[in-house]
Order: sequence, then C-alpha cells, then structure tokens
Amino acid sequence: MEQLPKYIQKVNNELWLTEDERDNLKLSYRIKEIVYAGHSPFQHVMILDSYDFGRMLVLDGVVQTTSLDGFIYNEIISHMPLNFHPNPKQVLIIGGGDCGVAREVAKYPGVEKIDMVEIDELVVKVCKEHLQEVSGNLSDPRVHFIYADGVKFAKEHNNEYDVIIVDSSDPIGPAKQLFELSFYQNLYDSLKEDGVMVCQSQSPIFHFDILKQTYKRINSLFPITKLYTAVVPTYPAGLWSFTLGSKKYQTVNTDNFDKDTRYINKEILEKAFYLPEFVKNQLNLE
Amino acid sequence: MEQLPKYIQKVNNELWLTEDERDNLKLSYRIKEIVYAGHSPFQHVMILDSYDFGRMLVLDGVVQTTSLDGFIYNEIISHMPLNFHPNPKQVLIIGGGDCGVAREVAKYPGVEKIDMVEIDELVVKVCKEHLQEVSGNLSDPRVHFIYADGVKFAKEHNNEYDVIIVDSSDPIGPAKQLFELSFYQNLYDSLKEDGVMVCQSQSPIFHFDILKQTYKRINSLFPITKLYTAVVPTYPAGLWSFTLGSKKYQTVNTDNFDKDTRYINKEILEKAFYLPEFVKNQLNLE
Repeated sequence: MEQLPKYIQKVNNELWLTEDERDNLKLSYRIKEIVYAGHSPFQHVMILDSYDFGRMLVLDGVVQTTSLDGFIYNEIISHMPLNFHPNPKQVLIIGGGDCGVAREVAKYPGVEKIDMVEIDELVVKVCKEHLQEVSGNLSDPRVHFIYADGVKFAKEHNNEYDVIIVDSSDPIGPAKQLFELSFYQNLYDSLKEDGVMVCQSQSPIFHFDILKQTYKRINSLFPITKLYTAVVPTYPAGLWSFTLGSKKYQTVNTDNFDKDTRYINKEILEKAFYLPEFVKNQLNLE
Repeated sequence: MEQLPKYIQKVNNELWLTEDERDNLKLSYRIKEIVYAGHSPFQHVMILDSYDFGRMLVLDGVVQTTSLDGFIYNEIISHMPLNFHPNPKQVLIIGGGDCGVAREVAKYPGVEKIDMVEIDELVVKVCKEHLQEVSGNLSDPRVHFIYADGVKFAKEHNNEYDVIIVDSSDPIGPAKQLFELSFYQNLYDSLKEDGVMVCQSQSPIFHFDILKQTYKRINSLFPITKLYTAVVPTYPAGLWSFTLGSKKYQTVNTDNFDKDTRYINKEILEKAFYLPEFVKNQLNLE
C-alpha cells in the first residue's frame, strides 16, 4: 500500500479508521488490512478487515455494516415486512448495496422477484467479492440488480410491489432524497393495494428529529404506520429505529416463522414494536 | 485547570476523553468541562460535562453512566427484580455508586429498607453533588449508605433480603470479585427463602464468555435463572445483558406496574427476556 486512503491513520505502526460523522463523538476501529479502497462516481468505498468487527463496508469514511453484526440490521429490516404481508411475491429493495437485505428476502420461497435498485454498482461488486459474510455472494436468479437512482425508479413504477424495503445510508449526501415526503408518496404508489413498506429511520437517541419526521411523513400517507427498534452495535448509541407503512395489514404474523436467522425469531419480531417510554413520549402522536 | 487528568487530551484546543478499555476500539467523547477530577483510595474519579451525553461519571478513564442514558440501565436493573418479587421490603444494592439504582428502588413505597453497599465513598459524594440527573441527589431516609466491601458484606449477612441488585463495573480491578461463584453463593445465603437477585452480566456481543460464565454460576445456585437484555448506548456494542436468579418466583409480574419511568414500561419488562437467536444458541443451555 503506497498511500493510505484519507480516512485511515497509521498510529504507532497500527492502522486505525476514525469515523468523523459526529462532531462530538468519535469511534476508532483498529484495522488489520485494507482489503479494498477506491472511488465510485458517488462516494469513497472501502472494505476493511478490523480486529473487533471483522470485515466492514465503509462509505465516505463511515462504517455501514460489518461481518460481526450486519445480520442484525439486515434481518430486522427484511423479515418484518415479509411477515407483515401474508404472501409477498414482488419485492423492491431501494439501496441495500451490501446485498444483505436481498439475501434475507431470498429466504422466502414464495417471493418470485426481488428488484434491488442500488445507485452504486461498485458497492455491490466489492461486497459480493469481499464481504460475503454479509452479502452471501448472492446468485439467486430471482434477484435483479438494477444500478439506478432509487428515487427515479420509484417514480416510474405503479401498483407493482407487495413489499418495499428502503435500506438507505444516513440522510446526508446521496441518501438525502430517500427521506423526503415525495419519495414516500412514490413508494406508496409503487405498492399494490395491500402493500407494505419499511425504511430505517435513524437513532431514537441521537436523531429523534429525523425519526419523528419520517414517522409523520409515512403516517400521512399510509393508514397503518408502525415504529419498531433493534440494537445495531456499530451504529451510534446502539438503538436503531425502523418505520413501517402498511396499506391494509395491521400486524406482523409470526405463526409460521421458520427461517434460519441469527438475530430474529418470533418473539423478537413481535417485541420489536414495544417502544421505550421516552420514544413513545417524544413521538407524542397527535 | 493547571494540569489535565491523564485520561483527558487537548486537541486543537478541544478537550477529549478517549476510552482505553478495549485494544481495538476506541470511543472519544468531546468534553465541555471537567467538573470534578480526583483520586479515591480505589480509583481515579471524574465527573465530565460532555457535548453529546451531558454529564458523565468516569472511573479510571472509562465512562460508567451519563445524564443522557443512565436511566436505561438503572431502570432495567432495578424494576425487573422489584416486579419479579411480589412484595420486596428489604433491598440490598451492591455497588451502584452513582445512586441511580437506589433512586429507582426508592420509587417503591412498600420497600422498607435500602442498604447500598458501595466501596468508594468518593463516587457517591461526587454523583450526589454533580450528577443529579442520575443520582437524584438521593435523600430518602430508607437508603442506608454503607461504604464497605460488597463481597465481605454479603458474606456476613444471612436470610435478610428480598431483593439484591449487583450494580458493578466491569470484571477488572475492584469489581472482579463480584463475578465469582463464592460471591453469588453468599448472595444466595443473604436472600430470604423467596429472594431474587440480579447482576449485570456484560455484552452479548463482546463478552460472551463472561455472560455465559455468570449465567452458569447463578444457574448452579438458583432454581430459576433468567437472562435479559437492554440497550445501553454508552456501553460497547449497545446491547447489554443482566442475569437474574430467583429462589421461588418464576416470572415478572407487571399487572400493576405504575412507576414514573423513562425507558421501561410493562411491555419492555416483559419483552426483555426474549433473546436474540445468537444469544440463545451461544448460551447453549445444557
């Protein structure tokens, strides 16, 4: 390695990645090896092998998913809508470049088509090659990789999907538009009349404004809106939120849940909707 | 401030605390002000005012509790055993120097006596003075502050308490003995015949060996052993575990739960026992 990527520092002959996302809190990960580093047209992309979290996908210097805990996020964002809808066949994933969501969706034999719309082909490529603990090196023929703008894609589809999963990064840079009301409206229109959508809605500890805004926007469009949480160890403050919008179905049905998973099970899916007091109070549903 | 405590660095005229607890992962908190710094006979003690977490108790350079999220840990470790036992009157707290557990226990009018055995008087003093968001500046006459070695104290008491809460720091340094089998045996003996104990048993992500050892030790003594989890944002990996040993009662009863809390509620108390798949699998209960 002639020159280190700008996000990596060498200290006492050790390599460290220091996340610069927050002004007043820094996480530093000790790195064994820079497996891949390069620029896509959209962002700086790295696969790092770390001591504590195994391999990590790092975009613009921020950890997105890791071998250690990627399954938690990918399972909870995927299996929840797939068990909310009784018979999902057509599934759209917006984002999800690490392929972990597509991998979970592919566990459902009833699903006929999985459209994965990711803007950055390089992310998919390096995750398939270097992050197979998360991506599973997905080769399921039902998965269609569509390298395009998810916002534009949603605008152009209508009454087509049973389930839409928005696996976006934080609402800064390329993912900002994935938190807009007009985007959710387009998702609503892309869903069939009994469709279900879900998106990650940030940390209840640090980003309550975004959580609340997301909830309100989805709630203004969908007759049924549900907030749920999971623990994502590599995200700031650990506690993470997801907002689900449903056109018809009222609740998750786990009676026949039998998937091979590492985080979720029937009880975890059901309890995820039980919110801490401070979340319920701050959400202050009118 | 003439000289900075050794755990604090000044970088570009900003103050930062960098936790040195783990070899391969460092958390750095930007600090507004060093409210207190000093040595007790047991450890280095600081109260820091941080940007993202408000005031924090820092022992030997490691964050123990903060104004932002201290309530989560203190509520889940306290209210669980107090609602497992149907009528707790005599309560023993081992550790808990930030006084947050005592504050939660004092919310139960039926509790007659709260013995809080903390080895380090300085921790209690500075938390009462400078960390009242956590400690509540506790002046309830039922609380007896006993500055002594919790291990020795437990050895000297017999058939006396309804509930024992072990609020220890990590099993390094002074708290190491609070994870030994002989200590749990002494707790067992200190409890009445229908008593309930609980202790924090570290992170399922990073310290599964300690979690498993703790669970097995308590399970070897108590007829009923239950593991539960909560999200503690300032602890590594967010997900934290607690192990409860009960001599008689089988489950938490939240029918009449009516306490003023910010994290827990009936549902959170009940769902805390539902464990992620990887925890159940790794625990591999024989």
